[in-house]
Amino acid sequence: MTAYWCEHAWLGPRRIVEGVLVDVTGTKIARVTEGVPAPAEAFRLAGLTIPGLANCHSHAFHRALRGRTQLERGSFWTWRDTMYGIAERLDPDHAYELARAAYEEMVSTGITAVGEFHYLHHAAGGAPYEEPNAMGLAMVAAARDAGLRITLLDACYLSSGFGAPPDGVQRRFSDGTAEAWAQRVGDLASHPDTKPDDVTVGTAIHSVRAVPRDDLSTVVRTLPDAPLHVHLSEQVAENQGCVAAYGLTPAMLLAEHGAVTARLSAVHATHLSADDLAVLAAARSFACLCPTTERDLADGIGPAPDLAQAGARLTLGSDSHAVIDLFEEMRAVELDARLATQQRGHLTAAELLGAATQAGHASLGLDDAGQITAGNWADLVTLDLRSPRTAGAGTTEETAVFAASAADVLHVVASGRRIELDPGDVGARLDRVITSLLEQP
Amino acid sequence: MTAYWCEHAWLGPRRIVEGVLVDVTGTKIARVTEGVPAPAEAFRLAGLTIPGLANCHSHAFHRALRGRTQLERGSFWTWRDTMYGIAERLDPDHAYELARAAYEEMVSTGITAVGEFHYLHHAAGGAPYEEPNAMGLAMVAAARDAGLRITLLDACYLSSGFGAPPDGVQRRFSDGTAEAWAQRVGDLASHPDTKPDDVTVGTAIHSVRAVPRDDLSTVVRTLPDAPLHVHLSEQVAENQGCVAAYGLTPAMLLAEHGAVTARLSAVHATHLSADDLAVLAAARSFACLCPTTERDLADGIGPAPDLAQAGARLTLGSDSHAVIDLFEEMRAVELDARLATQQRGHLTAAELLGAATQAGHASLGLDDAGQITAGNWADLVTLDLRSPRTAGAGTTEETAVFAASAADVLHVVASGRRIELDPGDVGARLDRVITSLLEQP
Repeated sequence: MTAYWCEHAWLGPRRIVEGVLVDVTGTKIARVTEGVPAPAEAFRLAGLTIPGLANCHSHAFHRALRGRTQLERGSFWTWRDTMYGIAERLDPDHAYELARAAYEEMVSTGITAVGEFHYLHHAAGGAPYEEPNAMGLAMVAAARDAGLRITLLDACYLSSGFGAPPDGVQRRFSDGTAEAWAQRVGDLASHPDTKPDDVTVGTAIHSVRAVPRDDLSTVVRTLPDAPLHVHLSEQVAENQGCVAAYGLTPAMLLAEHGAVTARLSAVHATHLSADDLAVLAAARSFACLCPTTERDLADGIGPAPDLAQAGARLTLGSDSHAVIDLFEEMRAVELDARLATQQRGHLTAAELLGAATQAGHASLGLDDAGQITAGNWADLVTLDLRSPRTAGAGTTEETAVFAASAADVLHVVASGRRIELDPGDVGARLDRVITSLLEQP
Repeated sequence: MTAYWCEHAWLGPRRIVEGVLVDVTGTKIARVTEGVPAPAEAFRLAGLTIPGLANCHSHAFHRALRGRTQLERGSFWTWRDTMYGIAERLDPDHAYELARAAYEEMVSTGITAVGEFHYLHHAAGGAPYEEPNAMGLAMVAAARDAGLRITLLDACYLSSGFGAPPDGVQRRFSDGTAEAWAQRVGDLASHPDTKPDDVTVGTAIHSVRAVPRDDLSTVVRTLPDAPLHVHLSEQVAENQGCVAAYGLTPAMLLAEHGAVTARLSAVHATHLSADDLAVLAAARSFACLCPTTERDLADGIGPAPDLAQAGARLTLGSDSHAVIDLFEEMRAVELDARLATQQRGHLTAAELLGAATQAGHASLGLDDAGQITAGNWADLVTLDLRSPRTAGAGTTEETAVFAASAADVLHVVASGRRIELDPGDVGARLDRVITSLLEQP
């Protein structure tokens, strides 16, 4: 039994309580006691403690791109060429090192669970590694060693575009057929390294570009109770291609094949028709917004407030890791909606905190995380309320969402364990790994 | 003579030099020597050193609003009511304390010069203080004590709207007539406290709402060589009101009265017609963008790339201080343009750094600041290149603009003096000042 005493804890919408004792047994919260002074034996969390954050959309290796794609003019598609240049260099060892460094950065910012949208499966040319899940297992090991839980969303990727075969590095993404992908994912889900409960194996349709219509049902039927994620309508060109190929928008194509359910996370969901929005909302699907990436990649501003209003559940991801700061992601959802509408006040701070915590974990298959309550995973993130950024702003949800930054995270407890990461060590690991990766021939 | 040795220094577009020795005499740079090892007697600046940043649009007292206006739904105009609630409470002592705390936050983030757009001139009901410039002088003292240079932009504010008299707290903003305003500003410019060269007195037209057409020329003729700033076309409603009142857009109204020149900073410049844009650009006016405030206040996305392309000079401000982080402001200009256009690569990192440094200082009347070169003010800001945010991103302009945050500022030299501010002390001052202000009856 370990005890943490929170000076202030966020226990739900508009409920910040002073003096909260959180007793932890193993990885879970055993008991939450409100309004008590700090017992001598408890570890004292001074500041505002919130639940651990769920980063629901990550491509860990994109961390190596930070600062390196901004010289370009051009589009999402030219950015993608640069990203492929990094993907080409990765073997399972490099992939582990880079993911571990990126995940340590995440943990240091208060993220305690990551959804890794994983598509770099095979060796050069598409040849399987001796262990066909070597790359996915590298992600699992990296997360475990960094101290966070992972939901590995194993992505099916069979075609480069509508009717086009994978080309170049894309061959590393493809299992050749949906059946071969399903077989490999089945093996991954029963691998001993994915059995402990810090790992969840889920599935992903990379996109409607990458999985032909006739293969969608196979993906949907594989691990049918696990989370299913998909890149959806991030770019107008993808919508146009889908309509040209099938006469349907991506969301409608997915719905036709049974993919749009309460276990679906539609990642981005930027360019939606009214019908698309209605079908996602009616199914209570998740919409995973990645606003700092959507800014960086010039995706445009999606209809987040309308999605929430209609009943879809919002979640957040740092995606390309242009920055890793879920506080910035939270406020960006609201702020970008303000830019699009010239009106303030679409989503409350409580709703945005809910997206980053409870809803986020649910979309990763973790219904028992994201709230500071008995029985939940013991994930606690404490914010400094007296930093230059947060001082004077009040002990409120609004301060956490609109004033705080990743740099204001003072303490992180993940799965019951206090993670002590020195920012200098996190930076040194990132620097070492990325420099050695980029300097290799 | 003091010497600073920069591990890496940004000496201009695409010119980052390793091993740069900066010799300082008094407040100015005496000599810059490139490509040398660190002399024993030099203070070592490890990381990437850039020139000090100019925060060209500040309302210092808005810092007390941080985190406190996000509960509201509503508009810019309802936000303004909350802001007025703070303004009502301020006397010169409180104004000094709050500005000093806000300015210390600024210095800690690498800002070495501030443009204070100052309109809270008088006591309750509009009665002058015994020293009629007591409030402006409080801003000057606060900046000096915090360690940064100030350009006090003394704003003329005579009407609440087109033809409407000042109401409520707005009476504190008004001098009654443009002539009385000009008299007071003249006294301020010749006051002994504004004589040292760490202070520049400039003027401001609060907005076309607040200065009637017939008074514009008086403002333009006052301190005719000093910087002149104006809130311009931040909100569509203001444009509509101006056209209804005068048959002209705000920019065209100002141009008609000789205000649109190379000394003008048009703050926001969000909702411009093609003609507005052309007239600002032809005059080589500055456009002062405040993107984090424009997000917060739902202003919309202005035409920053088009302004720059046409020849206007971009500068940056943290305005309402929803956050104080000019790195975020720099990238936000580009990222919001991407959201508006669905294209990447409008402004380069070098252009954005130029906006935050050389152009910014020029708009504040400081032509000898914002570059690390002999004769310039000795302002140096050193970024940590191995923080969790910046590590692995490279020693580049792109890292400074797209990866760094205010929390990555390691060292600040302002006007030749090294400022050592502990973030905890900055936060403690903010907390103390804002709490006491809000708790007073």
